[in-house]
Amino acid sequence: MSGNTFGEIFRITTFGESHGPGVGVVIDGVPAGLAIDGKFIQSELDRRRPGQSALTTRRQESDQMEILSGVFDGIATGTPLAMLIRNMDQHSADYSGIAGVFRPGHADRGFFKKYGLRDYRGGGRSSGRETAARVAAGAVAKLFLKDMGITVAAGTVEAAGIQVERRDFSIVETNPMRCPDEAAAKLMEQAVLAAAHDGDSVGGIAECVISGLPAGLGEPVFDKMDAILAQAMLSLGAVKGIEFGDGFAAARLRGSVNNLPGHAGGVQGGISTGEPVIFRVAVKPTPSVSMRQQMETLDGETVECAIKGRHDPCILPRIIPVIEAMSAIVVADFVLRNRAARI
Amino acid sequence: MSGNTFGEIFRITTFGESHGPGVGVVIDGVPAGLAIDGKFIQSELDRRRPGQSALTTRRQESDQMEILSGVFDGIATGTPLAMLIRNMDQHSADYSGIAGVFRPGHADRGFFKKYGLRDYRGGGRSSGRETAARVAAGAVAKLFLKDMGITVAAGTVEAAGIQVERRDFSIVETNPMRCPDEAAAKLMEQAVLAAAHDGDSVGGIAECVISGLPAGLGEPVFDKMDAILAQAMLSLGAVKGIEFGDGFAAARLRGSVNNLPGHAGGVQGGISTGEPVIFRVAVKPTPSVSMRQQMETLDGETVECAIKGRHDPCILPRIIPVIEAMSAIVVADFVLRNRAARI
Amino acid sequence: MSGNTFGEIFRITTFGESHGPGVGVVIDGVPAGLAIDGKFIQSELDRRRPGQSALTTRRQESDQMEILSGVFDGIATGTPLAMLIRNMDQHSADYSGIAGVFRPGHADRGFFKKYGLRDYRGGGRSSGRETAARVAAGAVAKLFLKDMGITVAAGTVEAAGIQVERRDFSIVETNPMRCPDEAAAKLMEQAVLAAAHDGDSVGGIAECVISGLPAGLGEPVFDKMDAILAQAMLSLGAVKGIEFGDGFAAARLRGSVNNLPGHAGGVQGGISTGEPVIFRVAVKPTPSVSMRQQMETLDGETVECAIKGRHDPCILPRIIPVIEAMSAIVVADFVLRNRAARI
Amino acid sequence: MSGNTFGEIFRITTFGESHGPGVGVVIDGVPAGLAIDGKFIQSELDRRRPGQSALTTRRQESDQMEILSGVFDGIATGTPLAMLIRNMDQHSADYSGIAGVFRPGHADRGFFKKYGLRDYRGGGRSSGRETAARVAAGAVAKLFLKDMGITVAAGTVEAAGIQVERRDFSIVETNPMRCPDEAAAKLMEQAVLAAAHDGDSVGGIAECVISGLPAGLGEPVFDKMDAILAQAMLSLGAVKGIEFGDGFAAARLRGSVNNLPGHAGGVQGGISTGEPVIFRVAVKPTPSVSMRQQMETLDGETVECAIKGRHDPCILPRIIPVIEAMSAIVVADFVLRNRAARI
Repeated sequence: MSGNTFGEIFRITTFGESHGPGVGVVIDGVPAGLAIDGKFIQSELDRRRPGQSALTTRRQESDQMEILSGVFDGIATGTPLAMLIRNMDQHSADYSGIAGVFRPGHADRGFFKKYGLRDYRGGGRSSGRETAARVAAGAVAKLFLKDMGITVAAGTVEAAGIQVERRDFSIVETNPMRCPDEAAAKLMEQAVLAAAHDGDSVGGIAECVISGLPAGLGEPVFDKMDAILAQAMLSLGAVKGIEFGDGFAAARLRGSVNNLPGHAGGVQGGISTGEPVIFRVAVKPTPSVSMRQQMETLDGETVECAIKGRHDPCILPRIIPVIEAMSAIVVADFVLRNRAARI
Repeated sequence: MSGNTFGEIFRITTFGESHGPGVGVVIDGVPAGLAIDGKFIQSELDRRRPGQSALTTRRQESDQMEILSGVFDGIATGTPLAMLIRNMDQHSADYSGIAGVFRPGHADRGFFKKYGLRDYRGGGRSSGRETAARVAAGAVAKLFLKDMGITVAAGTVEAAGIQVERRDFSIVETNPMRCPDEAAAKLMEQAVLAAAHDGDSVGGIAECVISGLPAGLGEPVFDKMDAILAQAMLSLGAVKGIEFGDGFAAARLRGSVNNLPGHAGGVQGGISTGEPVIFRVAVKPTPSVSMRQQMETLDGETVECAIKGRHDPCILPRIIPVIEAMSAIVVADFVLRNRAARI
Repeated sequence: MSGNTFGEIFRITTFGESHGPGVGVVIDGVPAGLAIDGKFIQSELDRRRPGQSALTTRRQESDQMEILSGVFDGIATGTPLAMLIRNMDQHSADYSGIAGVFRPGHADRGFFKKYGLRDYRGGGRSSGRETAARVAAGAVAKLFLKDMGITVAAGTVEAAGIQVERRDFSIVETNPMRCPDEAAAKLMEQAVLAAAHDGDSVGGIAECVISGLPAGLGEPVFDKMDAILAQAMLSLGAVKGIEFGDGFAAARLRGSVNNLPGHAGGVQGGISTGEPVIFRVAVKPTPSVSMRQQMETLDGETVECAIKGRHDPCILPRIIPVIEAMSAIVVADFVLRNRAARI
Repeated sequence: MSGNTFGEIFRITTFGESHGPGVGVVIDGVPAGLAIDGKFIQSELDRRRPGQSALTTRRQESDQMEILSGVFDGIATGTPLAMLIRNMDQHSADYSGIAGVFRPGHADRGFFKKYGLRDYRGGGRSSGRETAARVAAGAVAKLFLKDMGITVAAGTVEAAGIQVERRDFSIVETNPMRCPDEAAAKLMEQAVLAAAHDGDSVGGIAECVISGLPAGLGEPVFDKMDAILAQAMLSLGAVKGIEFGDGFAAARLRGSVNNLPGHAGGVQGGISTGEPVIFRVAVKPTPSVSMRQQMETLDGETVECAIKGRHDPCILPRIIPVIEAMSAIVVADFVLRNRAARI
């Protein structure tokens, strides 16, 4: 109930902080008999890990994943599948300077008000590092979905105000922005580097397409397909909004138009229609910037100082695999839940 | 797990269909000692009920609520508080003509694919009528929050493409659009009536402000304040998107700007900051329009026909109290969950 | 989380008090397509309702059940199935005399300490009347299990110290004790009437046999078949113990003997073996007796007084259908949960 | 939902198998600010670990616990507290001989029927080794309860048919049987060694006393204090029954007697009375015995063979700390849940 568990049947519980011993996940409900391809899980983690390009933080983490339980001879046994990723390159000392202040745009102050204490080392639990555990779990979900022909693909469709003009998700892994438009990717990359040069950061919009879904997934009334995907996406600290299909633009259409195929984004009344589910999420600019900022101290005063540490000037490239992972987890859960829908 | 329960401590389970005996809700976790003001609950239901103005469906439902349990001498006892609202004016015959087709823009087809059978009478469980139960539960949540100084106010900030220029939520109940800008309200009203005249419908955007929240509410990492609000809003069939604070516009800001106060919408890293929580939801145009449309039959063929029944040409006026109700339920739950945050 | 919901997929939420408007249940997760036989549900309620024989309370309740949702043309639609049973013959006035005292052997004092207020009318939520809702839900579970050949039968195997010598569960409905041994039933009946004549009450032991179960039901490690059955049984206020198979007697066997077939009661390591699941529950004597007793007042003083009201001198006959109902609910849930066990 | 999570607010999820890399637990909901005494947790694990005396298995496991998350400077941060205990002395080869058979009295066959595959190495997930994770979690619960003056003490009150005549729980740690009666302990010890000498095993009865509980804990109606304790105890593979207070003996008392103080075991109607909560659990003889037994093969044939491996001739001494741990977890959860009981 404390919020670190997600899903009903394919259910994940994550643990770990950015500067503690490591992060990990327990997946309860992996169907027995599923082949667990450790190399694939690792390759998904490699997509998220820091240090991939000039666009991402220089923190070096190999993110080597160890399976602690739930697999025997390469096959899921039906018991909890636990995975551990140890932290290797935490520079906690970087953060000692900000132990007395709350970083703007972060959860620091909220955690302090909530729990009455402060784990100042790099955001602790609220750090994006926690999402490594989600990616590992998402990789298992992808393995489960693959056999059903369900795939998840996400990409950066806008960054620093630059929008894509085409969407070819097959090229997403060929550029550091994970952008489905090669030309736009180059412009985005320049904009990100320019912001980084200024000690600043940029945001953008990610789009995700889930293909191969059968009609009829999603649970009325509170656990609608889109409702749970929305929870999943907003559970990422950097995400500030989500829209399905035409989304906010649909609010300006007339019903007779919006009822036509292609507007709904693959979900009607919370239930999948059988068409691809399409949604976009708004990703804010990374709050950790190296330029000096106004910050509130633990005593409520305002000071100006700078945050050391190694940060991503744009989180889009690394949040893409996380969005895919969370989507896969949501869909895997709905597939399993649907098995109980009929006699 | 089948999706009709929402919340962890202040937990609601709704039941009922649009054309069955009625709709209702069981709230488990109402704190003992809370004064239950039945008149206030009824007044909230009256805000949602059909037939309030020319802008809403002509279905006549008094939506009289009966408390079945959980209250003794006007005080919540701590046991489940159940409420029942009987259906009075269902015209099931209106729907017999569409028993063989799936209405476009509705969950009809998804339910059929999921459950293998069809309750064709007005959408059954997926009807907006189910939200009456949520409004009743939300009224109880509001009673709980009121004593803490927490209030929830929502209004229509865009309809048929017409946007407000001012936001005075105190006037929302004075116009049929529930719009916080009197001048815009008039224009919206004309646009809705014009669409209705064409046998069509329009959508819009609602904004909600939750005031008086203490800092520190929300549960890392999956049950973030914004994540659960997003689930709550997307659990409404007409909602296609949500954004907090600057939302999608934040994706175009630099970090140094977005970190300044006022952009986040009162939630950082999923935890309330103590400022008002502000979000907007995209509401699609009502899919039930009276003009003729292409529809898919149960056998997969396409036919053209019209939907009888009495529908809202714009659902904004009636979804406003539902948005408030779901917000109040979310916040009440987080307030109670927070009691366990510390030793 | 407040404890009025039970089950994961076949999930029931009950509401209602003994002297309020009524009691009811919402079942979420009834598989779509199940034929809902209202007469069977009513017949199960009739087995539990008061006033069946001289052995039970003289309170007259017809316990007429109304289906509020979830059924269309006699078939479960997959949406929440809600049922309501109105109270008709509550004599709240009987209880006004004990508003200032806690009845011994009841939850009165616990509820007061927990919630800070007192619903003195017949125990309120802690009354056995709440179990009517469970019986209604259990009847639906039985309908689901019947098609799989799974049956549940319970009977009184001991009352007032009198034990059965044979177990023919087919005759249970032919005697007022619901005893599987006709001769023992007569002796039990006399003992119950003798206790009633003294203004006192007796307890006993019920046995339950679940037949037709496939091997492999139950969820390691916390939701073992026997663990959840134990929760289900101890959730009945009158039950003070449970044992499976040889139970407490197994504690005196050597492993080589206890490992032989027939000792385990159909469950090993929490998973069904495919043999019938057999357990016994200890049912305490009804705490409501008409003779004068020492009671604690709300102020902590001790007084001697008598409880008016109409009580069962032995609850065994009426708890039998409740035990069956809860067992059926547990098994139905495990059957549905098991559908997700494998790829 | 797959059954490896227990508790609502103080919620544990365990993982791991007897012969995999290790076992562990994630506790979500540890209240922030709790001092986490790692030495105490280790000392509790030492009470459960194998190899303590001639009465327990000779498997050598140091059971060194590593905290992976949730603690900063010795204080719980409110985020998930994960602990890992690596397996060191697994002799998987011992089990290769029984890969083709199901051990009698174990969950082997049930797991195979459920999941369709076989982790034959020492019971895998159903091994008692999983309980190490529970003991670690229980130690954290005890730390939380200690400050409230709530203590949990368990002991062996019967083994091999030998019953205690006195109950001095303060001496439990002074004898290898963890028996509250020194004289009985000696007789029990001889009986256990005699059974071991025969290649056999014995069972017994454990009693647990929870002291210092306030009145009003427990949640009506399904999550009664005794119902959840019953689930917790029956979730231990070796436990076949539980009774509270007079338990099965209460079934033979008259109501007027049973209503007197001291019979109920500290819980009435599922709510704590403020008196100590007392219950007993029936522990079956260890099913792993070294003498030859009839076993079923994976093909359904019966063969006679012997189980190698290192087993406990009586599990009572080592289950005592597990019973305490589970009790502490249950009570900690109820204490936190109770914080939401009133406005």
